Amino acid sequence: MADLIEQSKKLAAYSAVDENLKPNHKVIGIGSGSTVVYVAERVGQQANKSELVCIPTGFQSKQLIIDNGLKLGSLEEFASIDIAFDGADEVDSQLNCIKGGGACLLQEKLVADSADNFIIVADYRKNTGILGKSWTKGVPLEVVPAAYNKILKQLTELGGKAQVRSGLPAKAGPVITDNGNFIIDCDFSQVEASKIKELNDKIKAMVGVVETGYFVGMAQKAYIGNADGSVSTLSV
Amino acid sequence: MADLIEQSKKLAAYSAVDENLKPNHKVIGIGSGSTVVYVAERVGQQANKSELVCIPTGFQSKQLIIDNGLKLGSLEEFASIDIAFDGADEVDSQLNCIKGGGACLLQEKLVADSADNFIIVADYRKNTGILGKSWTKGVPLEVVPAAYNKILKQLTELGGKAQVRSGLPAKAGPVITDNGNFIIDCDFSQVEASKIKELNDKIKAMVGVVETGYFVGMAQKAYIGNADGSVSTLSV
Repeated sequence: MADLIEQSKKLAAYSAVDENLKPNHKVIGIGSGSTVVYVAERVGQQANKSELVCIPTGFQSKQLIIDNGLKLGSLEEFASIDIAFDGADEVDSQLNCIKGGGACLLQEKLVADSADNFIIVADYRKNTGILGKSWTKGVPLEVVPAAYNKILKQLTELGGKAQVRSGLPAKAGPVITDNGNFIIDCDFSQVEASKIKELNDKIKAMVGVVETGYFVGMAQKAYIGNADGSVSTLSV
Repeated sequence: MADLIEQSKKLAAYSAVDENLKPNHKVIGIGSGSTVVYVAERVGQQANKSELVCIPTGFQSKQLIIDNGLKLGSLEEFASIDIAFDGADEVDSQLNCIKGGGACLLQEKLVADSADNFIIVADYRKNTGILGKSWTKGVPLEVVPAAYNKILKQLTELGGKAQVRSGLPAKAGPVITDNGNFIIDCDFSQVEASKIKELNDKIKAMVGVVETGYFVGMAQKAYIGNADGSVSTLSV
């Protein structure tokens, strides 16, 4: 069973790369997660790999790029990315996602937002059709430390159950992101795909919210590895 | 002449405090700027000053609070502020403001946003009726460093003339804010009061924009010190 899932993840990742990476794509965003490992592997097998530059979404993805002999680039050098591949914590029927379980949502969202094509690769547990169904910890929000108290109050008024993410057991006190901010996880229970944009706009508009873990309307396709070893392809 | 302006600033600040600070106001936001100096002075003269806690918007305002023998507090302790006083770089007819000339817009906006009452004190040069008339450097935006390139591109598409603020002569390279971010100054020329909210929403929604220097619909009143020594009071 475990072997079948692993096989399906690899198949999903390879299909995502083979069907979407075009010869004119030179700048590639590489995310993180257990399925993206196979994306990096597949990109590293391209005949023109020496012409490619890969933009990481965080520390793990930087390692993946290096380990597969690919060239590292940065968003400072490339304001636009031809195509980006990343995982998700949950995906809904419109390919809206929740991301940020690993507290790297800001860099992940910058890469997705800079990409002309954004492709999700994940296993079937993430493909629930509606956000908040299996991912019950809430949407991760990156916030300015001084603002956390005010934002917790505003999120409660908006109907969410919000708390600052603790760094335990690795660190006492709150998690600090790569950008020096806090993460607030806010549970809005299940949110219909049609209502995510409005909710996301309200949260991002709050003073002190740096970014949200809702990726709304960013992905064009998702490649889902199934438990039986097969792959489902979703598109909008 | 200079004496008259200074006298009008003091009068504006004293009037702002005398007419708006109520006995039940215990948590007070104190901003910065040459007129706010007199606000802190006046708050420091209150009979119940030992009961008051003052929340600063930055380093200068922290000093003002201490110098006037007032108690320092923080936004972490107080999610809401009874009343806040601050300056502005420019104020329009609806009391929308541009702030952030000193690169402290994030903390300033957190204080304003947390305040039940937000009062502007400034001199007549800031009171132009429309944003972008005398303040021609553009609206300051606090942005995540890795995102500056992408955001410059997006702002250009939105019709702005944008550039990363240099730290020269004090520091080579970009200004770094108190939160470790960059400042982009974006000139949209003059923007009608009725169009500020829409423009601000679009900018804040950009991935990597932490906060904008547009303070939209936040101030209830403005006390303006005039060149002839008089004070104008504006309200919405």
